Amino acid sequence: MSRWDPGAQGRLADAALELFAEQGFDRTTVAGIAARAGLTERTFFRHYADKREVLFAGDRLAHHIAARLAEVPSGVTPLEAVTVVMEDASEVTTARADWARQRAEIVAAHPELRERELAKMGMLATVMAEGLRERGVSAAPAQLTAEIAVLAFRLAYERWAAGPPSVPAASLVRVLLAELRDAVTSTCPSPTAPTPP
Amino acid sequence: MSRWDPGAQGRLADAALELFAEQGFDRTTVAGIAARAGLTERTFFRHYADKREVLFAGDRLAHHIAARLAEVPSGVTPLEAVTVVMEDASEVTTARADWARQRAEIVAAHPELRERELAKMGMLATVMAEGLRERGVSAAPAQLTAEIAVLAFRLAYERWAAGPPSVPAASLVRVLLAELRDAVTSTCPSPTAPTPP
Repeated sequence: MSRWDPGAQGRLADAALELFAEQGFDRTTVAGIAARAGLTERTFFRHYADKREVLFAGDRLAHHIAARLAEVPSGVTPLEAVTVVMEDASEVTTARADWARQRAEIVAAHPELRERELAKMGMLATVMAEGLRERGVSAAPAQLTAEIAVLAFRLAYERWAAGPPSVPAASLVRVLLAELRDAVTSTCPSPTAPTPP
Repeated sequence: MSRWDPGAQGRLADAALELFAEQGFDRTTVAGIAARAGLTERTFFRHYADKREVLFAGDRLAHHIAARLAEVPSGVTPLEAVTVVMEDASEVTTARADWARQRAEIVAAHPELRERELAKMGMLATVMAEGLRERGVSAAPAQLTAEIAVLAFRLAYERWAAGPPSVPAASLVRVLLAELRDAVTSTCPSPTAPTPP
């Protein structure tokens, strides 16, 4: 289930994370990462645009999500479809648990990386909304369902990274969706709020 | 209710948007914006870090949101509290309707600006979650309610900008919250999904 090939890309990712942890993200250079991995800078740039991108598999994840969503049987509700896909994405993302935890820590500590993370999540939401529209869901619910799913995915990953290793990230997707449902439902019957149909 | 002072800052914002519309965002320079506003570059940089920041009042909006949330009476539910605050924020954000619509168009057309927008929204969610915790809401529901509220705010702004001028952005916040609730509820009773308590 790992999306890391055993070759250059994985070695670069490992080397980068080691160096980020040892000497900090800011002080780590692409040259240093390549050297640690026993590769050239040129090889680095064949795989990643810059040192930040080592931490973001957004494009690959987007392809993965689009492919998985297309495979979900057509009778499944939109929310259930995105839930299944986000569970799968969580599994893929955290397959190398130690790496994924360290990554979460580094991202959380750097505003520019948190910003990049949110941008990648925005891209995933767009891809997922497109996938839902291809399943016949109309534009507005497709967008909203996709946004909710990606929010649950992001928060599940954050909670997984902060929690005990025994809880799989995929299992937290439904937990987060239930909590989001509570947040938007249980406190809602205030006199002025519209009631759901 | 406008957050634009009649002085330099507002003139710079107007000048920037005019130039973005006339010659494109990429080809507009800080020098050009300052010249159009009849001000110096130095004055520009007293108000904004760069030309992108003219489009983002995130910090001011965050202060505004924190202040408004603190004013909401304590008996109000967390969701109702954030709804009221987001309605107010929508009003403030779209007070100058033409400006706010043009801004939305420019942001939508530039990936780097969409990224910045998402980052600012992330900051608003953090500020709002802190405000909810100060109201006695525990950490997880505070975060989830804040994320939902900011998502509704962002989508309400997008829908407002794409829709007829007669619909106020503030009125769309509850509409979007209701749709988000539908997205996460009505399709949800699938056999494997956990039921909320």
